[in-house]
Amino acid sequence: MTASGEFDVFTTGCPSRQVLEHVTSRWGVLILDALSERTYRFNELGRRVGGVSEKMLAQTLRTLERDELVQRTSHPQIPPRVEYCLTPRGREASRLLAVLVGWVEKETPSILVSNRAFDQTRS
Amino acid sequence: MTASGEFDVFTTGCPSRQVLEHVTSRWGVLILDALSERTYRFNELGRRVGGVSEKMLAQTLRTLERDELVQRTSHPQIPPRVEYCLTPRGREASRLLAVLVGWVEKETPSILVSNRAFDQTRS
Repeated sequence: MTASGEFDVFTTGCPSRQVLEHVTSRWGVLILDALSERTYRFNELGRRVGGVSEKMLAQTLRTLERDELVQRTSHPQIPPRVEYCLTPRGREASRLLAVLVGWVEKETPSILVSNRAFDQTRS
Repeated sequence: MTASGEFDVFTTGCPSRQVLEHVTSRWGVLILDALSERTYRFNELGRRVGGVSEKMLAQTLRTLERDELVQRTSHPQIPPRVEYCLTPRGREASRLLAVLVGWVEKETPSILVSNRAFDQTRS
């Protein structure tokens, strides 16, 4: 937070910086983006988000649930069914992230060209 | 990359996932956002981005330069002056990130309320 009482990600210790890190974390981005497609069960979501461990998936979902970006619903049945979906706030975040992810996917081929050029000037 | 040859951040090992991580990394976001304001010298940028170590600043700038998001210019003078600014591609990325950062700063007060509610139901 700045002296004027506003939240500012440039200030060390400002809570907005933690929120930014939750939303932009490696798995946070992908989980929010996946949940923009539909509601997922835990294991399904793990398969959708390639490479995430069960531990990181659980931990990230809990962080996103605590920020009220994701809603966890436990259906009392046998076997128990637990589902995750976006909250209205999560939908806003995922919309902004989807634009970023789309841009990254589109730019990746040219960025790979830049990477090669950079590496050549330094080898 | 998917079977159809497209880049897809959900696929483990797809290069787009690395690019996404560069752009959304803790310091990557803040550096790209800071450089959208103006050109910075190394030490100035370190002061602008609260809490970044010299090592992480240098490492992140190099990653962003390799992705051609940031341009490093070394002016041959005594003492040497090295400046960093955004490339056209970096400006596109920083514009998308600025929207996200603005949203996070705006939402942080309500997210803190959500955090407290979450913690209370679990204590």
